[in-house]
Amino acid sequence: MIIVLKPNIKKSEETAVLKEIRKLGYRPHIIRGVERVVIGAVGDERTQHTLETLITWPQVEKVMPVQKRYKLVSREAHPRNSTIRVGDVVIGGRKLVVMAGPCSVESEKQLMQTAKAVKKAGAQILRGGAFKPRTSPYDFQGLGEKGLKLLAKARAETGMPVITELLSEEHVDLVAEYADILQIGTRNAQNFQLLIAAAKTGKPILLKRGMSMRIEEWLLAGEYILANENPNLMFCERGIRTFENYTRNTLDLSAVPIVKEESHLPVVVDPSQGCGRASLVATLCRGAVALGADALLIEVHPNPAEAWSDGAQQVTFDGFAKLMRDLRPFIEAAGRE
Amino acid sequence: MIIVLKPNIKKSEETAVLKEIRKLGYRPHIIRGVERVVIGAVGDERTQHTLETLITWPQVEKVMPVQKRYKLVSREAHPRNSTIRVGDVVIGGRKLVVMAGPCSVESEKQLMQTAKAVKKAGAQILRGGAFKPRTSPYDFQGLGEKGLKLLAKARAETGMPVITELLSEEHVDLVAEYADILQIGTRNAQNFQLLIAAAKTGKPILLKRGMSMRIEEWLLAGEYILANENPNLMFCERGIRTFENYTRNTLDLSAVPIVKEESHLPVVVDPSQGCGRASLVATLCRGAVALGADALLIEVHPNPAEAWSDGAQQVTFDGFAKLMRDLRPFIEAAGRE
Amino acid sequence: MIIVLKPNIKKSEETAVLKEIRKLGYRPHIIRGVERVVIGAVGDERTQHTLETLITWPQVEKVMPVQKRYKLVSREAHPRNSTIRVGDVVIGGRKLVVMAGPCSVESEKQLMQTAKAVKKAGAQILRGGAFKPRTSPYDFQGLGEKGLKLLAKARAETGMPVITELLSEEHVDLVAEYADILQIGTRNAQNFQLLIAAAKTGKPILLKRGMSMRIEEWLLAGEYILANENPNLMFCERGIRTFENYTRNTLDLSAVPIVKEESHLPVVVDPSQGCGRASLVATLCRGAVALGADALLIEVHPNPAEAWSDGAQQVTFDGFAKLMRDLRPFIEAAGRE
Amino acid sequence: MIIVLKPNIKKSEETAVLKEIRKLGYRPHIIRGVERVVIGAVGDERTQHTLETLITWPQVEKVMPVQKRYKLVSREAHPRNSTIRVGDVVIGGRKLVVMAGPCSVESEKQLMQTAKAVKKAGAQILRGGAFKPRTSPYDFQGLGEKGLKLLAKARAETGMPVITELLSEEHVDLVAEYADILQIGTRNAQNFQLLIAAAKTGKPILLKRGMSMRIEEWLLAGEYILANENPNLMFCERGIRTFENYTRNTLDLSAVPIVKEESHLPVVVDPSQGCGRASLVATLCRGAVALGADALLIEVHPNPAEAWSDGAQQVTFDGFAKLMRDLRPFIEAAGRE
Repeated sequence: MIIVLKPNIKKSEETAVLKEIRKLGYRPHIIRGVERVVIGAVGDERTQHTLETLITWPQVEKVMPVQKRYKLVSREAHPRNSTIRVGDVVIGGRKLVVMAGPCSVESEKQLMQTAKAVKKAGAQILRGGAFKPRTSPYDFQGLGEKGLKLLAKARAETGMPVITELLSEEHVDLVAEYADILQIGTRNAQNFQLLIAAAKTGKPILLKRGMSMRIEEWLLAGEYILANENPNLMFCERGIRTFENYTRNTLDLSAVPIVKEESHLPVVVDPSQGCGRASLVATLCRGAVALGADALLIEVHPNPAEAWSDGAQQVTFDGFAKLMRDLRPFIEAAGRE
Repeated sequence: MIIVLKPNIKKSEETAVLKEIRKLGYRPHIIRGVERVVIGAVGDERTQHTLETLITWPQVEKVMPVQKRYKLVSREAHPRNSTIRVGDVVIGGRKLVVMAGPCSVESEKQLMQTAKAVKKAGAQILRGGAFKPRTSPYDFQGLGEKGLKLLAKARAETGMPVITELLSEEHVDLVAEYADILQIGTRNAQNFQLLIAAAKTGKPILLKRGMSMRIEEWLLAGEYILANENPNLMFCERGIRTFENYTRNTLDLSAVPIVKEESHLPVVVDPSQGCGRASLVATLCRGAVALGADALLIEVHPNPAEAWSDGAQQVTFDGFAKLMRDLRPFIEAAGRE
Repeated sequence: MIIVLKPNIKKSEETAVLKEIRKLGYRPHIIRGVERVVIGAVGDERTQHTLETLITWPQVEKVMPVQKRYKLVSREAHPRNSTIRVGDVVIGGRKLVVMAGPCSVESEKQLMQTAKAVKKAGAQILRGGAFKPRTSPYDFQGLGEKGLKLLAKARAETGMPVITELLSEEHVDLVAEYADILQIGTRNAQNFQLLIAAAKTGKPILLKRGMSMRIEEWLLAGEYILANENPNLMFCERGIRTFENYTRNTLDLSAVPIVKEESHLPVVVDPSQGCGRASLVATLCRGAVALGADALLIEVHPNPAEAWSDGAQQVTFDGFAKLMRDLRPFIEAAGRE
Repeated sequence: MIIVLKPNIKKSEETAVLKEIRKLGYRPHIIRGVERVVIGAVGDERTQHTLETLITWPQVEKVMPVQKRYKLVSREAHPRNSTIRVGDVVIGGRKLVVMAGPCSVESEKQLMQTAKAVKKAGAQILRGGAFKPRTSPYDFQGLGEKGLKLLAKARAETGMPVITELLSEEHVDLVAEYADILQIGTRNAQNFQLLIAAAKTGKPILLKRGMSMRIEEWLLAGEYILANENPNLMFCERGIRTFENYTRNTLDLSAVPIVKEESHLPVVVDPSQGCGRASLVATLCRGAVALGADALLIEVHPNPAEAWSDGAQQVTFDGFAKLMRDLRPFIEAAGRE
């Protein structure tokens, strides 16, 4: 920790700070600067009481941490890329992985048609929401267990592993029984109890970025998974909340290379949520691949205008097939298959 | 719903939109404008399939909802102010209510001292965290049930009702057993399953605004509580996330009159979380009262520099007593007691 | 400056950093921490080459400045409050100052009526835009010089000093000839050439906060005024840009006590721009006063619905008179007149 | 315009709104919905008095514009892509254009070396700042005219056209004399007087996005250029201000396809400003190309650690050469040369 004192304070005020630093288990190291005294407090910031609270003292101007707060997810701790195996699919390897399917599972017909269409176009994993977190209590909340059963059926018919959202600690066993990957949504990205419960299933976890999460906070949320002994974590950028209102969210594609730099874990991009506009999805996929994403999560629906949730961001079967074709040169340019 | 078509589209494209609108249960009403055709679709937006998905159609430029999405929380539905009774304390009435106490319950001594100090200075409700949502898994996570028991003991000794955070569906029964008010934190403000579970306890609920929640979304999260038959809801502004980094969050005091205008429910302000700096708390309390807040939630600690969580924003006993004294003229100016 | 090195770097990489630090004129001071080496570089950050560029070196993890970058505007440099005299009016003293008038000067009748109405209700300074910065080139751009002349006429008739916006270096002499206070708008808050030109007139300057300006940047923009030998500066909070769309901007009332803490200069609040909704203006004024604002800037129009600019945020004559009456107890509570 | 009335208002209140709508030149068209009355007001929103001010009326709940506010920059007005010719270079055509050079012109040696290095690596246009807008008045403000002369010299020696920032109306003639493209920086993106003055030179203009500008506002700022009879405009995304602090700004790459969809004008991306970190620049360039950018603006310096401004975001000569090589497959994937 670095503690900056205010200019022109009394010697006794300085001494009091030094004493408190020692009391909290750090070794202080004084630097007398041009206008201010700076104290380097040597000690492990991750295991000891933080010194940030010293900011309440009137003689203290600033307290700055030195260490990174995340450990297990950091590339420092694990320099090589991690990969996650789900059935025959490897996420984080040379091959770009595409997860596609409807926003919500609505009916057997809708899901089976979609599963077959996305598989044919090249998707390897099937996505579909059975439990849906909705802004309004009056919106469709998902088919629940019935939706999970349909996903399992689609998996049996197509051979594709399935990813679906987990949004309640109460559903952990139920969802883990049917899903191959547990998705934690943006609204639950700092629902730490849910993260811990999900981690304990041992299932691979896709952690979406919270709507207004700084990258450090996102990595720390991921740390909750690894610290609970589940190494199978992937981060998913899905758009952040900004002042822009042309799109539903602002897809922060720069988060892809940043998370790849800071962490060894795979990075997924969800352009559907990211923009909320089907017309932009294909182009954003190209950007995501060029920036190094390991996988894409894309919403596809037989007839988006009649979708029960988030229709505006779902692409049609034809749109998806074209997207996949057009993506090929970018996948190659990125040195992937 | 208002549907705006793109300029210069074909008659058949217009007809297709009209047909879809009717199919989804609305009655279309055409207005031919200077450059564009606008369709007013008459029907209940809250109970019928949304038309927003029409935006995926190439001939559609914009879709705009007309109705407000919240109902039970809205002042339209309930023009008079609602009040909430907790023991002898009434929130939302003429009297300004102050809830104060430590960020985290740390020990019996710390809690009892604080409870007595805040009561003496005029607080009516005791706050204290037993389960703490922390950004890092390595930070102190609260004393858990032991903390709840200490809160109950402090209530017994001081007569003050207690408010404490509920952050897991698994803890609902446990926390509801000890707490008089359940606090839902900013990170769980759209954890809808937790909202539903909390509502079902029948206990009064304080719903903090999510870090990047628009007011409409906040009101809709509140709608989850009332729709689950718990009318005892209060909204708590605690700062939103912006680009400013002088303070931890940007306390959005304008949210107070806005929520009072849109809703009949009481509004609480948490200036401690709002700014993350003890030196600003007293001044922000004055602003909150002037803007019409019904209650304040203030963090107080015997020795903030050694607090186990969020020390930087906790005020000392003396600071709190002075804050309460200095607040008096503003409470009177606001026509309150 | 504090330079944090990455963990596990070679001795030669450390030496290279030390050499560069010395070359750029600082004295390095090494602290060997638990995982990382931290270097305190002693030297004046305001006059010497910044070390922040060291971040491009692969062995450097973080560079953190120690000093505050603003000087003349800071309270450190000038502990007592500054005041600004404009005619008989003193801004920053014990008396709360109200500046009111139409968003745009539209006609002699509109301006004279408004000037008299706001004076009668207690305003001391007349506001009115002659040159208007408008998002669209097709919107009304102000009456220009004709508007300035009308303002001068209103001053002659009412005795109130006038404040009006300066938005072009080309207009500096013209506007300075007519205005008593030059207003720099949010879109020009970092138009440094305009700031310098305005400063050189010697006239008092009201500097609005840029839409997405951090407080540090705002204070530094003010530093441009004082560094150009004009001490008559006041800061004006007018709302920042956030994700919230209920209001046009989010009025950051917490900026009031922060700027008062960091700077000795007066602080003004513009609730009209801040929210863009006339119905909220009166309540926000109360909050601004409670938080310590020295002055208010309020838009008033004889018939807001027919205003040529920003009608939605202008209050009527009756609305303004009521606002002023209702404000009185808060002014007293704040210890002002 | 669409005007939504509040529920349960009196007939006379409705009539008053209809009367005002007619008075302001629109033809009202009533739709009686489930809960609310909606009025479609037919008339040209771009040439007539706005109806948005009706929101001040107590019986009005919402006013929503229907038309887009931009015209000349819109793709609607000009369906085919526009191109801009600067010397032999065409921006907006099949060939991707790279503009590179130092953030600030510092010396003849620094500029000439950089110009040759970037040309060799494939850049077609030389960038370099002579007048620099700096957050602090104590930071290096550019070499001014001397810098412009050096740019002219570098052009003479390398044959590359030059782009440099214009930040003052007073400098328009001077900068236009030396520069081939005038850059308007983020802080001046809504300095409309500067936009008009720049437009009148007839020179091509690169308009950076304001730090917190919505895309609509950016397009409208561009409209100021075209409305002043200069068709040679390109938009440049350079990062927006968000809550994220890992990078200096958040590069909004999704703005590229959005502006291409809404406008016929070329789109440039500045990844150096966008992230403020040299290590991310190359990767962001790939994303920009994949998303359809017509040109890139990249900061290159012989020794970034000693740069006089923004060193942290400038790449070295070797870094730039590698960036250009690595970019090739993405340029091809995007169907460009």
